[in-house]
Amino acid sequence: MKDDSFRTIQSLGRTELIDELMEYAEYEHPSVKLGYGDDAAVLKGEDDFKLTTSETFMEGVNFDLTYVPLHHLGYKIATAAVSDIYAMNGTPEVVNVDLAVPNKLSVDMLKEIYRGIGAASKDYQFQIVGGDLTASHKTLSVSISCYGSVAKEDIIYRKGAQVGDAICVTGDLGGAIAGLRILMREKKFWQEQEEQTSFQPDLDDYEYVVKRQLVPAARNDFIEQIGESSLKPTAMIDVTQGLVSELQHLTSASDVGSYVYQAAFPIALDTRTVADEMREEVDRYALYGGEDYELMFTLPEEQVETLADEFQDFVVIGKITDKEEGLCMQQAEGGVVTFGEEDETNS
Amino acid sequence: MKDDSFRTIQSLGRTELIDELMEYAEYEHPSVKLGYGDDAAVLKGEDDFKLTTSETFMEGVNFDLTYVPLHHLGYKIATAAVSDIYAMNGTPEVVNVDLAVPNKLSVDMLKEIYRGIGAASKDYQFQIVGGDLTASHKTLSVSISCYGSVAKEDIIYRKGAQVGDAICVTGDLGGAIAGLRILMREKKFWQEQEEQTSFQPDLDDYEYVVKRQLVPAARNDFIEQIGESSLKPTAMIDVTQGLVSELQHLTSASDVGSYVYQAAFPIALDTRTVADEMREEVDRYALYGGEDYELMFTLPEEQVETLADEFQDFVVIGKITDKEEGLCMQQAEGGVVTFGEEDETNS
Repeated sequence: MKDDSFRTIQSLGRTELIDELMEYAEYEHPSVKLGYGDDAAVLKGEDDFKLTTSETFMEGVNFDLTYVPLHHLGYKIATAAVSDIYAMNGTPEVVNVDLAVPNKLSVDMLKEIYRGIGAASKDYQFQIVGGDLTASHKTLSVSISCYGSVAKEDIIYRKGAQVGDAICVTGDLGGAIAGLRILMREKKFWQEQEEQTSFQPDLDDYEYVVKRQLVPAARNDFIEQIGESSLKPTAMIDVTQGLVSELQHLTSASDVGSYVYQAAFPIALDTRTVADEMREEVDRYALYGGEDYELMFTLPEEQVETLADEFQDFVVIGKITDKEEGLCMQQAEGGVVTFGEEDETNS
Repeated sequence: MKDDSFRTIQSLGRTELIDELMEYAEYEHPSVKLGYGDDAAVLKGEDDFKLTTSETFMEGVNFDLTYVPLHHLGYKIATAAVSDIYAMNGTPEVVNVDLAVPNKLSVDMLKEIYRGIGAASKDYQFQIVGGDLTASHKTLSVSISCYGSVAKEDIIYRKGAQVGDAICVTGDLGGAIAGLRILMREKKFWQEQEEQTSFQPDLDDYEYVVKRQLVPAARNDFIEQIGESSLKPTAMIDVTQGLVSELQHLTSASDVGSYVYQAAFPIALDTRTVADEMREEVDRYALYGGEDYELMFTLPEEQVETLADEFQDFVVIGKITDKEEGLCMQQAEGGVVTFGEEDETNS
């Protein structure tokens, strides 16, 4: 089958692939305000907009049951789903949970996944209203679809960033991939042991990054803050694929360019320590790592100080430029690099 | 790991298992009118109710790529999802599609799945608004979540059936499982050939049942009809697991019993022919086969004739009785059997 006509899925970038698939999404329903192309789809309501999004995690690709506790898995996929709702400045309301479950999982293990989703439902205030459950021969897969809403005047799209706006990011970046690196190293070490017992690595020194990988938090605190504020970001997206990918999405939707400062990237000391140990560049963790579930947003520059008085856990990493400028990064040493379209496939 | 504390998922019935999992669905969102327990969850709207549901299909369990064309797979899972919306007397609006895709699928094969969902989107008039896409090491899995709506006065729940109501079913039953039996037999035959070419069975004689299995249709025609009618079923459910399971769900929700006539089951001649060939009881196909995506509904007996003037493709299979009567079936030979709780695990 590996002839010329077999285009592998890896031969296309994720965005390019989804664009090809979406050619079949021709039918337009009158209730839809915005279909594919932002963190969540937008449906018209009377007073508000309804938001829908979904996430799917496959064992062996998005998680490894050797080191991912099942309740953390449940919490994380719920976080990933609600994060897309927050990225539109909305609040989640309900989720459906779809599970394909292999025999190696007991009833109690399955309940652990639900316990994690249940914990997330309290933190993010959504109700689990149903879903589907089927068997699987080999691997566990979990999908969560989330429905939420946002007042019409409050919605924030990826589009909307204006030239001159500051580009801001909540929290810190690269921690999730740093945690993954540690967990993978420990797993390799464990596999090389002659007498394998159950996987119980000593992760005390890496608590922060491992937690960022296993139980990331969505930034509802920021959404709540701007709900109380007179300020409103001009554009927003959540950081699931890494900075480069999110900058591409946001600037493409807003028809602008961007100029970011590598030295301004918010990277935790614990994340730097891991990159040093691994002899890897920590900035690549921020640029391509993903799974941090932080929010990246743009704001008129004169409003940044006001926001900083109200909410402390964000930094400015750059500014929005003309579209012709492309995506530029001023490196710590002073040189300037440009990210092209092809960078998207790295993430 | 197979000690006493390892309760296998098969050790519980599907409903019992979901009930245990739903213990973690404690958080109640104020927008929810009905969470778990019907074909779709119900959210409060201003003028209408919003409906949400999801379906998940796993390769090797819910479909076999040896004989399931990918565009049929896409069409079928969309049918399964919208069927739950129709079962509430609603109409679908949008879907999210989640895919976990192994390397053995090319871009064009993936597009075939979307082509099928796209064809369904035109037939059922919903918009594909997004979803998620991830890799998979071995098996393809597809989940579809669907969002729809129904006017408040039009919603039909599983609850609502009254003692004396006629139990009705659209179309015919057991065809989907008959088609599956044929496809499995042809696959076995093909596997036993010494020289295996590609799987191209001669299915001309089984066109009807194979189509029922591969590309079932949801009954939007019935929903459109009752939208124009002065009649409204008192309760409704779609037939995805087989008659016994759906009767259990509907009567349990309505707090009633049921009495059905085996001789009245709507079974196509083509379905009977397959059961004869397989030396199986065709009534078991209807009782436990599932995947027919027909609608089962209840209606005051005096309204049945009026409905029959408006819509011809349904039959009366029995009547609603007192709860204490349980679930009874009068066999064709005249004897009466009762279905207990344990029958649910057969489906």
